[in-house]
Amino acid sequence: MIKNIAITGGTHGNELTGVYLVKKWQNNPELIKRSNFTTITQLMNKKAIKEVRRYVDQDLNRSFSLTDLANDGLDAHEAKLAKELNELLGKKGSENPKVDFIVDLHTTTANMGLSIVVSNQSKITWRAIAYLCKMEPALKVYRWLGDIENAFVDSMAPHGFAIEVGAVPQGVLRADLFLKTEALVYHLLNYVEKENSGVDLDLDDEVEIYDHEVLVDYPRNDAGDIVAMVHQDRQDKDFTLIEKGKPLFLTLDNKTIVYEGESKYTLFVNESAYYEKGFAMTLAKKKRIKV
Amino acid sequence: MIKNIAITGGTHGNELTGVYLVKKWQNNPELIKRSNFTTITQLMNKKAIKEVRRYVDQDLNRSFSLTDLANDGLDAHEAKLAKELNELLGKKGSENPKVDFIVDLHTTTANMGLSIVVSNQSKITWRAIAYLCKMEPALKVYRWLGDIENAFVDSMAPHGFAIEVGAVPQGVLRADLFLKTEALVYHLLNYVEKENSGVDLDLDDEVEIYDHEVLVDYPRNDAGDIVAMVHQDRQDKDFTLIEKGKPLFLTLDNKTIVYEGESKYTLFVNESAYYEKGFAMTLAKKKRIKV
Repeated sequence: MIKNIAITGGTHGNELTGVYLVKKWQNNPELIKRSNFTTITQLMNKKAIKEVRRYVDQDLNRSFSLTDLANDGLDAHEAKLAKELNELLGKKGSENPKVDFIVDLHTTTANMGLSIVVSNQSKITWRAIAYLCKMEPALKVYRWLGDIENAFVDSMAPHGFAIEVGAVPQGVLRADLFLKTEALVYHLLNYVEKENSGVDLDLDDEVEIYDHEVLVDYPRNDAGDIVAMVHQDRQDKDFTLIEKGKPLFLTLDNKTIVYEGESKYTLFVNESAYYEKGFAMTLAKKKRIKV
Repeated sequence: MIKNIAITGGTHGNELTGVYLVKKWQNNPELIKRSNFTTITQLMNKKAIKEVRRYVDQDLNRSFSLTDLANDGLDAHEAKLAKELNELLGKKGSENPKVDFIVDLHTTTANMGLSIVVSNQSKITWRAIAYLCKMEPALKVYRWLGDIENAFVDSMAPHGFAIEVGAVPQGVLRADLFLKTEALVYHLLNYVEKENSGVDLDLDDEVEIYDHEVLVDYPRNDAGDIVAMVHQDRQDKDFTLIEKGKPLFLTLDNKTIVYEGESKYTLFVNESAYYEKGFAMTLAKKKRIKV
């Protein structure tokens, strides 16, 4: 039984879709009310939202490791904010969490369409994903099982994931993607209501996923500045296969750098926020997994 | 005779095309060297570039009014920076300016394609534009003759304009638009070289322009927060006619607001940086003018 779900927006202050969906639902709570559980909404980083910046001091969506949450010596705005949010929506790892399921709303400048980024392995999380894939066949699923602890917002709850929608620039609301994100959240709420009521959901027992393998950084000079761009043939090619020998980067001097690895799928191609994180795209393998 | 031209990039620190083109040319000055004039390059707002923000305190590209340049009491980072740049590239209004022509490189999150924003009425400026339109037929020209003094970067010189290229998110380099901007600048340098040498350029005596008429703001609530988005049917429709009764905005509550005015062209549709300036798009009339 899922007793409550939190819809969180504005984890990144310049990703407006989640910010305005949460505002909409705070003004119209009947839209997210269902019969057998409670829905909470939360604007996450209000200071960053006001400044239309991803974050003030550090990425809030990397600030929820148990180590950092337990460290009272951290001074960054988002480190402190993470502790407050963990009191409200956690506590992370607790046997009696305040929220059972977190769906965190994001946008990306990459051409990711309507997608889910998931690091949670729980049965409920994956049944929810299977339901959403059934209701929205264009939805894509990116699984990221890192070798370090998941420090994302949704890790505060036992179940959850992030919704990533793009391409949309930072600081921009696109009506088409706003509507798609909204519809996907309603599917999720309907899933929880049905799951709680014991209805047979007739879900596929397999889901197609893109499984994270590796990050690819931009070519950089000794000072760390980029010296090449994503090649124009690779731009906007998210969830698209790249084969050995195909153009990957174009240097500022107009030389093409080709991909040298084995065939994989490119994701998060040329996402604005990842320049500073040191990657130009991620590579994933497509597979079907049991849910 | 044009003795020198300045190519300026990074006036807005999160518009990377101009930043990296200037870096490219500073590393490869032979690319912008021509026979009968000097080309200067300048990274404009280095602090904002480092922080990947449009500006630190205020918009640098609105900081070049003669009044502000003469006001020693202004404390904003960009107000001080404008005075320094005016020493380097001006002085604005001087009879003996250090630079004859400024081309300021910008990007936009709006789907503006390859375009010029011009507020200068000089003969040389418009002959340059006529040449560029001949060399690049897809180029569009947006004329903005405000009723207040032009405070743009290019106003420091007797001749000049801005190049606006989009759609590209803030903080992103798109190879395709980088290459188009680069090619356009080379056309401009070739124009100056030919103009200086007295070659007959065989220019059209008319240029098609989009002449600025009015700004259209987002619908907002009493607190000033937006309550509607650009309608999905209008999104990406830059340099496109809008007729009375056609969808303009979609409220957060999914109600369509239609356009009530006479037919005009929409430009800068849903540009990220203009949410705070209070406009969702601009409206213009298409006309042909003598050059």
